[in-house]
Amino acid sequence: MAAEEKKKLTPISDLGEFGLIEHISEKVKIKNKETRTGIGDDAAVLDFSGMQTVVTSDILVEGVHFDLMYTPLKHLGYKAVIVNLSDVVAMNAIPKQIIVSIAMSGKFSVEAVDELYSGIYKACEAYGVDLVGGDTTSSVTGLTISVTAIGAAQKEEIVYRSGARENDIICATGDLGAAYMGLQLLEREKEVFKANPHTQPELSGNDYILSRILKPEARLDVIKKLRELLIKPTAMMDISDGLSSELLHICKQSHCGCRIYQDKLAISQEAAELANEMNLEPLIAALNGGEDYELVFTIDPADYEKIKDIEQIVAIGHVTSEEKGKYMVPKSGENIELKAQGWNAYKK
Amino acid sequence: MAAEEKKKLTPISDLGEFGLIEHISEKVKIKNKETRTGIGDDAAVLDFSGMQTVVTSDILVEGVHFDLMYTPLKHLGYKAVIVNLSDVVAMNAIPKQIIVSIAMSGKFSVEAVDELYSGIYKACEAYGVDLVGGDTTSSVTGLTISVTAIGAAQKEEIVYRSGARENDIICATGDLGAAYMGLQLLEREKEVFKANPHTQPELSGNDYILSRILKPEARLDVIKKLRELLIKPTAMMDISDGLSSELLHICKQSHCGCRIYQDKLAISQEAAELANEMNLEPLIAALNGGEDYELVFTIDPADYEKIKDIEQIVAIGHVTSEEKGKYMVPKSGENIELKAQGWNAYKK
Repeated sequence: MAAEEKKKLTPISDLGEFGLIEHISEKVKIKNKETRTGIGDDAAVLDFSGMQTVVTSDILVEGVHFDLMYTPLKHLGYKAVIVNLSDVVAMNAIPKQIIVSIAMSGKFSVEAVDELYSGIYKACEAYGVDLVGGDTTSSVTGLTISVTAIGAAQKEEIVYRSGARENDIICATGDLGAAYMGLQLLEREKEVFKANPHTQPELSGNDYILSRILKPEARLDVIKKLRELLIKPTAMMDISDGLSSELLHICKQSHCGCRIYQDKLAISQEAAELANEMNLEPLIAALNGGEDYELVFTIDPADYEKIKDIEQIVAIGHVTSEEKGKYMVPKSGENIELKAQGWNAYKK
Repeated sequence: MAAEEKKKLTPISDLGEFGLIEHISEKVKIKNKETRTGIGDDAAVLDFSGMQTVVTSDILVEGVHFDLMYTPLKHLGYKAVIVNLSDVVAMNAIPKQIIVSIAMSGKFSVEAVDELYSGIYKACEAYGVDLVGGDTTSSVTGLTISVTAIGAAQKEEIVYRSGARENDIICATGDLGAAYMGLQLLEREKEVFKANPHTQPELSGNDYILSRILKPEARLDVIKKLRELLIKPTAMMDISDGLSSELLHICKQSHCGCRIYQDKLAISQEAAELANEMNLEPLIAALNGGEDYELVFTIDPADYEKIKDIEQIVAIGHVTSEEKGKYMVPKSGENIELKAQGWNAYKK
C-alpha cells in the first residue's frame, strides 16, 4: 500500500558544528578506567599510572584510500578505526582510546555522518575502545578522516620493529592477499558499471575477499593469545603495505636479513581463484597486496613449539644475518629478492 | 652577473611515501624524557608515570581554514601546531608531543613540504614539544593537516570547563579581535588583487594584526605564570571560536551565568583602527572574532589580588548564578546577551 517514501535528509548546517559534536558524542559511553574525561573539553584526559602509552595516527582521503561508490559509510568508519587499532596492536599494546577528526563537503547529510559514526561506534564496541574527542569540519570537496589511537602496555611488553635476531622464526597471522583481490574485484565491477549503469555487479561468491577489503579486523585476538602463551615477539608490524614491505622494515631496523618460504604463505581459495581468473599471480597479491591488517612478527626459536599448533599463526621463515639479504624461497627455481612494491599513495 | 635561476623543485613522487617520512623525520630531535620512541615504528611510545595525559586533535583544511594565496606554508605549519598546543594549555597541562598527518595533492613539491615542516619544527622548538609520528598521504585536491597534541599534568592540576562557581572572577589574556581583523585585511587585499593583479597589497602598518592571524601563539607563558603564583583556575578554555562562544561553553558546563564588562575588554589599537576604517564594530571582533588563541578562565575571588597587576591578564567580569543569564555590560545602555556567533565551518 504505502508508496516508498524518499527519506528526507538533514543538512549538517541545520545542526552547526557544536550541534554536530553533541549529536555524535551523546552516543558515546566510556568503557576504560584509564579514560578520565572524553569528549567535551579542550582535550581528553587519560590516566595510565605505571603503564606506557602508545599513540598512532592515520589519515584516509576520499579518492585516494577509499571510493564511496563502493564503500558503505558504516564500513568506512569501522575500517578507519581498525587501521589505527592495528598499529597499536602491532606494538603489542592494548588499544584504549581513539580520537576522530573528519572534514567533509556540503554534500554529506547528518544521516550520512550517523552512518559513518555507526561504524566508528561499532569498532569501539568490538575492541573495547573509547572515543574521546576529535574535530569535525567542512571540506571544499570530498571526505577526509583522521584517526588517532592510543594504547597501553607495560614497558617490558612493548614490541618494536628493531628487536629481530638471527635465527628467530618469522610468523604471519591469517592469510594474505585477499584484501588486494577484493579491491581488484570492486574496481573491475565499478568499471563495468560505469560503462553500463544497468548491469548488476557480479560480487557473489566473493564474500570473504570483499569483507577483507571493506571490513578488516585488527589482530587483538592474536596479541591476547601470545600473552596467554607467555610469548613476547622480538619484532612485530601489522601488514598494511604488503608482507614484503613490512619485512624489509623489520630487517632494516633490526639490521638483519630473512628467508621466507613460498609454500608457507597462506592464501585463501577465494583470493587465489579470483587472481587466476583475472590473470594475476596470487603470490604477488600475498607479498605486495597490503591492507590485510594481519601481523608479521618474529619469535625466539625456543617459542616455536608453543605456537606451531595455533591455527591463526603460521611460521613462514626465519631471520638471517644482514649479509644474507632478504629473499623468498619459491617452490622451485632461484630465490626471489623481496622488494617493497607495496601501497604508495604518491605513485602516479 | 648571475641571471636569477628558477630553483628546480622535487616532485614528492621522487621520494615516495617512505622516503618522504625519512626526509621529514631526520630533522626531528627528541626533547622530552616522556618520549620513549618517536617516529619509525607502528606507534610512538610515551611514558608518563604518575602523570595524567591530555590529548587533543584539530584538522585544518585548505579553502576552509586557510588560503594558500596569503598563508605562507611555514606559518601554516606553525599555526597548525599552535592551535593544538593551545587546547593542551587550556587544560592547564604542559604540551609534550605532537603527531602530524598531512594529505596533499600532486601540486606540492618536496620543497613545499619542507617549508610546511619548517614551521612545524619551529613550533616544536619554541614550545619544547616532540614530533613523534603521523601519516603522510596524497589527496585528490588541496592540503589537509591533522595534528594531535599530547600533554601532561598532575591529576589535581587539570582544569576543566565545568569548575566555575558563582562569584569567581573571569579573566582573559592578551587582547581580542586582532586575528579576526587580520583575516579581514587579508581577504580585502585578496579581492583587490584578484580584480587587478598588478596592485601591491596594502599591508603596511598592520604587522600586529597580521601576526595574530598568521602566526598565533599558545599561552603557555600564562599557564606557567599562574603556577608560579600558585593559582589554579576553576575553569578555562582557549579562545578559538570567539570570547562569547567560549564563555557560553563554560557557563553551560559549569551551570552558571556571567557578567563581563565592555570597558574591560582589551582591543589593540591596530585592530580598532582597521575595524573603524572597514566600518566594523571593534567590540564585535573582540566578542565573536575567534582565532586569537588567548585564554579565558575563572579564578577564586581570593586569588584576585595575585593577578591584578599581571600585565598579560585582565579581569573582565564575574560568574553569576545560572538564572541571571550571560550578559555583557556595555559602557552605556542595556546589558547585551552573549550569543555564540563564533566561527562555524558549516555555515554557508
